[in-house]
Amino acid sequence: MTMNTLGIVKRTIDRADRDAVERLSAFGVATIHEAMGRVGLMKPYMRPIYSGAHLCGTAVTVLLHPGDNWMMHVAAEQIRPGDVVVAAVTADCTDGFFGDLLATSFRARGAVGLIIDGGVRDVKDLTAMEFPVFSRAVSAKGTIKATVGSVNVPVVCAGAAVNPGDVVVADDDGVVVVPAAAAAAVADAARTREANEAGKRERLGAGELGLDMYAMREALAKAGLTYID
Amino acid sequence: MTMNTLGIVKRTIDRADRDAVERLSAFGVATIHEAMGRVGLMKPYMRPIYSGAHLCGTAVTVLLHPGDNWMMHVAAEQIRPGDVVVAAVTADCTDGFFGDLLATSFRARGAVGLIIDGGVRDVKDLTAMEFPVFSRAVSAKGTIKATVGSVNVPVVCAGAAVNPGDVVVADDDGVVVVPAAAAAAVADAARTREANEAGKRERLGAGELGLDMYAMREALAKAGLTYID
Amino acid sequence: MTMNTLGIVKRTIDRADRDAVERLSAFGVATIHEAMGRVGLMKPYMRPIYSGAHLCGTAVTVLLHPGDNWMMHVAAEQIRPGDVVVAAVTADCTDGFFGDLLATSFRARGAVGLIIDGGVRDVKDLTAMEFPVFSRAVSAKGTIKATVGSVNVPVVCAGAAVNPGDVVVADDDGVVVVPAAAAAAVADAARTREANEAGKRERLGAGELGLDMYAMREALAKAGLTYID
Amino acid sequence: MTMNTLGIVKRTIDRADRDAVERLSAFGVATIHEAMGRVGLMKPYMRPIYSGAHLCGTAVTVLLHPGDNWMMHVAAEQIRPGDVVVAAVTADCTDGFFGDLLATSFRARGAVGLIIDGGVRDVKDLTAMEFPVFSRAVSAKGTIKATVGSVNVPVVCAGAAVNPGDVVVADDDGVVVVPAAAAAAVADAARTREANEAGKRERLGAGELGLDMYAMREALAKAGLTYID
Amino acid sequence: MTMNTLGIVKRTIDRADRDAVERLSAFGVATIHEAMGRVGLMKPYMRPIYSGAHLCGTAVTVLLHPGDNWMMHVAAEQIRPGDVVVAAVTADCTDGFFGDLLATSFRARGAVGLIIDGGVRDVKDLTAMEFPVFSRAVSAKGTIKATVGSVNVPVVCAGAAVNPGDVVVADDDGVVVVPAAAAAAVADAARTREANEAGKRERLGAGELGLDMYAMREALAKAGLTYID
Amino acid sequence: MTMNTLGIVKRTIDRADRDAVERLSAFGVATIHEAMGRVGLMKPYMRPIYSGAHLCGTAVTVLLHPGDNWMMHVAAEQIRPGDVVVAAVTADCTDGFFGDLLATSFRARGAVGLIIDGGVRDVKDLTAMEFPVFSRAVSAKGTIKATVGSVNVPVVCAGAAVNPGDVVVADDDGVVVVPAAAAAAVADAARTREANEAGKRERLGAGELGLDMYAMREALAKAGLTYID
Repeated sequence: MTMNTLGIVKRTIDRADRDAVERLSAFGVATIHEAMGRVGLMKPYMRPIYSGAHLCGTAVTVLLHPGDNWMMHVAAEQIRPGDVVVAAVTADCTDGFFGDLLATSFRARGAVGLIIDGGVRDVKDLTAMEFPVFSRAVSAKGTIKATVGSVNVPVVCAGAAVNPGDVVVADDDGVVVVPAAAAAAVADAARTREANEAGKRERLGAGELGLDMYAMREALAKAGLTYID
Repeated sequence: MTMNTLGIVKRTIDRADRDAVERLSAFGVATIHEAMGRVGLMKPYMRPIYSGAHLCGTAVTVLLHPGDNWMMHVAAEQIRPGDVVVAAVTADCTDGFFGDLLATSFRARGAVGLIIDGGVRDVKDLTAMEFPVFSRAVSAKGTIKATVGSVNVPVVCAGAAVNPGDVVVADDDGVVVVPAAAAAAVADAARTREANEAGKRERLGAGELGLDMYAMREALAKAGLTYID
Repeated sequence: MTMNTLGIVKRTIDRADRDAVERLSAFGVATIHEAMGRVGLMKPYMRPIYSGAHLCGTAVTVLLHPGDNWMMHVAAEQIRPGDVVVAAVTADCTDGFFGDLLATSFRARGAVGLIIDGGVRDVKDLTAMEFPVFSRAVSAKGTIKATVGSVNVPVVCAGAAVNPGDVVVADDDGVVVVPAAAAAAVADAARTREANEAGKRERLGAGELGLDMYAMREALAKAGLTYID
Repeated sequence: MTMNTLGIVKRTIDRADRDAVERLSAFGVATIHEAMGRVGLMKPYMRPIYSGAHLCGTAVTVLLHPGDNWMMHVAAEQIRPGDVVVAAVTADCTDGFFGDLLATSFRARGAVGLIIDGGVRDVKDLTAMEFPVFSRAVSAKGTIKATVGSVNVPVVCAGAAVNPGDVVVADDDGVVVVPAAAAAAVADAARTREANEAGKRERLGAGELGLDMYAMREALAKAGLTYID
Repeated sequence: MTMNTLGIVKRTIDRADRDAVERLSAFGVATIHEAMGRVGLMKPYMRPIYSGAHLCGTAVTVLLHPGDNWMMHVAAEQIRPGDVVVAAVTADCTDGFFGDLLATSFRARGAVGLIIDGGVRDVKDLTAMEFPVFSRAVSAKGTIKATVGSVNVPVVCAGAAVNPGDVVVADDDGVVVVPAAAAAAVADAARTREANEAGKRERLGAGELGLDMYAMREALAKAGLTYID
Repeated sequence: MTMNTLGIVKRTIDRADRDAVERLSAFGVATIHEAMGRVGLMKPYMRPIYSGAHLCGTAVTVLLHPGDNWMMHVAAEQIRPGDVVVAAVTADCTDGFFGDLLATSFRARGAVGLIIDGGVRDVKDLTAMEFPVFSRAVSAKGTIKATVGSVNVPVVCAGAAVNPGDVVVADDDGVVVVPAAAAAAVADAARTREANEAGKRERLGAGELGLDMYAMREALAKAGLTYID
């Protein structure tokens, strides 16, 4: 049956072009989200476990069950250097699916971080390791190893669809997913956007108004904006 | 660029087999979710606007922006008899994107209901019309028509990935999405499961314990369960 | 000091024109909200305690403290026939500030209902009395009578500013506040809007698309909407 | 070790006096909560799955893990006529731990209802069976049977401590827990309170103010309440 | 019509007395809130985007629509040195309405910070700029410029009523609004309160109990408090 | 009546063995939670007011009413050196029940920190004092002193049952409660667990997979896990 996405580990995935990933790593999440055409963001409840955490890598996806982190160990084996593990859960759960032991294992395999729509623990150790994690929650609650999920299947994580191999970028502003096939184009668009912003920043800093710089006054008047004293 | 999913209306979509849809309509959401292997459910915050609302149909998807329902009118034209409109929003928003006028239009086009990860209004009228709606919220708040989204692109709605043409089934227990290609197989599995449950219900009703009927006692003891007085 | 709004009961308030209130009572909340220019709505977490509850009246405002309903008794004395008590709380609290005894008292004074940004209890009795209440929560939790708040001062209730004497309209779609001075004009605008909608409903019901009826196709194309097959 | 409360089933529990339970069943949750001295309530997010659901019985407690309902079957065997199953979960989880099959089994054992700090499914069937359930959520999501919890240990359910054998009363206003040893005294206090309220209702209905009936005016003035015009 | 508060920019507003604002800037939010008589606080979900952020200034208010930041540019022109922009949204929305470009513009106009009942982005840059922002959320999600709101009208922001020209004070404890007319009196009351606290701190630090320092024992006994061993 | 737990101060409580408390203070919350058999955790919404806050001590419990901190002063007198005050509230409330004055008093009595299922204020001062607080919220909102609660009765705080004298341990990962009688055994189990983890960390860091180290492959295959390319 084609419907079943549980119980599967896909070993071969098409990762986004390494060069495009590297180029994307130079941009912030807000810039990439704009370059994407304002799609691909995870929900804003996803927060870094320490201030300044940031990452950019290719997704190894995991589908977990509430309270069960068995598949995290299965995922570890599929990690290649430069990967980010993206963990979705079949129902909202804040349990601590991940801690310093798994981080040690993931890092040894080459992972550059974790995105998880659930909870993590050992936050102090993870911070000391500078292992970037973006999660829904922090919780000391342990999990069991009893039910199979899947690795490297398409998942929905924090409201965003993620395919194995997609580029995931995360910083203080949130987490954005760039489809593997679009990575190079998005990197180009991001560079264009950023170049474009530098000049604007200078003009605004000099006191010029956005109203004038973006020539908004006519459109505002047409939309009915009225000035009174 | 392949990345951009905004500003597109796909007119031709592959709807799930009509016969499979009809067969699925005979089952409740819980049964179908089990038959699916326990995937495909939307988040439980999606609730019917009136008790007893239920629907089963093929998805016409819409991607909306917060506070903007312009694309609902674009979607109306793409509805075929038996379709369900599935509306996702690019960010959480409870505004009333849908009311009795749109319901009148959707029904005239053959829609059998609406699933929306946002708000709706005119609940009294929709209830009188018996137009089934499952939504995140009820809100009288009106929306604008200013920004283009998309119709019939893959969307994430209330945590579930939905492709145009997928089967969507909703009742008091929630909303489940069946991939078009899996519709027939899921209908078969649902029938098997339901047949299987009838006998169990009778035995449990007669006082037999699940512990015995499912032969759980040994496994529980092995897992360490201890009885004390 | 002009700053202090606690500990005050204002006995004389300017209620909205009785005729305008009556005219407003003929319209639903969604229509009035539109006629207001899309402002004045309370947050959508305000829900009726029974399906079909609706009310329209002039506001007697109360400012309560968390867990304390003393001022509800003070408010009772200020009720005139046709009033709605609008209760705000200085911090989020779901306690049951109101039950069937207070409802009996309020009704005896002429109140037509209650809007409360907190909890209520005795829901079964209130439903049997058909006393409409829109609240943030239902909770059996009792409250104390220890701290003075105020009656008939401006309050913020569920995100909306309410002045004593304003018109409050509530139904299944939510709660809207019409400033007393605007009541007549809003009633006029609501009537115009409703008349306008009847014709639209008929056309949409006959299968005409909103795209054509509202002549949206050109604007959509200009905004970049692209149709593909 | 005395610390471990997982993996235990206590077969012998002291249920509250049957006569006291019956007397308590005559009162609403709000009245009993007041008679208790305003303690013992569960959080107001616990809602009946159908309007009008109510129950009163002695608690058989269950401690579940997120996404796992194995212990519900273990609990079934411990049910005696007149019991209410009270299910706590070790972490917040909305999964559907309970449906019509378990309801059939519970009822066959004599259970009068279920209180669960999690989700349930088959709501339509449960409503048809008139099997009262108060839950945190409704969800079609199935659960596994992999981890042992406990039955008839002290639990915290929706913020309230519950011991096996305690009386649990639930109606539209919420859920309250009465310690077994206090059942008779609370029933007495509830009767006194209810008798006391009848006279008040009549006086308030005749237009007398609570300000006068409860003689609050002096205390309000002393607390600084000021009347202005 | 007097009801409509959308589409208006008020250019002339009465700002609180500059000297009073400066005096208020010496106090924390908790002290000012107490000096206000415990009113005027925004909801506690308003948090600083970086630890230690604080501000005190006069309000320029903005009313935004969900997902639309057009009016932020209109507001920029109305900023005078020492102003704080206070942004309300007509419905809950976490989108990133504000980032480093607008911050650059606001600062160039003399703004001392932003209070927004929505989301912001470019948190890293804003932190580097030491531009204090208190918001409901952080989100990289971009917004459009399509619908007019208003500038310098009365708004409700995070549950607090704010009039243009009011003093807004924010620190780690939250955000408080002081009506312009009350600014001097509140500054006086805050100074009194703070002077009063210094002596208490010393006595408590020396081990004296609040029970004795505030002479609470008699009142507690009268209220029924009982000591047992 | 045995039911009433309000209005009581218990002066004599059995605190956990001092040596066991000291031994427990060497472990993180996640380790202790595991050593407990995965019970005893408070909800993950309990967060430290400053990064790095941690505490370990014996519980003095307090039961507060929403918006009322009177009993905090009563609790102060019951504090012995090494105690942690654990404050529960009879209903969810984010008000600021605690600030720098009470912290000064608590510390003078020997308290090592506060756990409160409500709000606190003066966060800047508390941070400067390095007084560890774990709370549901931060809010400048002041509270009254009008209603008696209790001190040193069993409470439910953030979902966990706490008895006076129990050991409470809190760090970045959350808050865990160890029953006094189990303190020594849990300390032993925690030491065993931690010793056990050191070796694992080294092996995982060297690239060994959890799949092999924990010998999971066979069980996964048996559970149906399938590898595809």
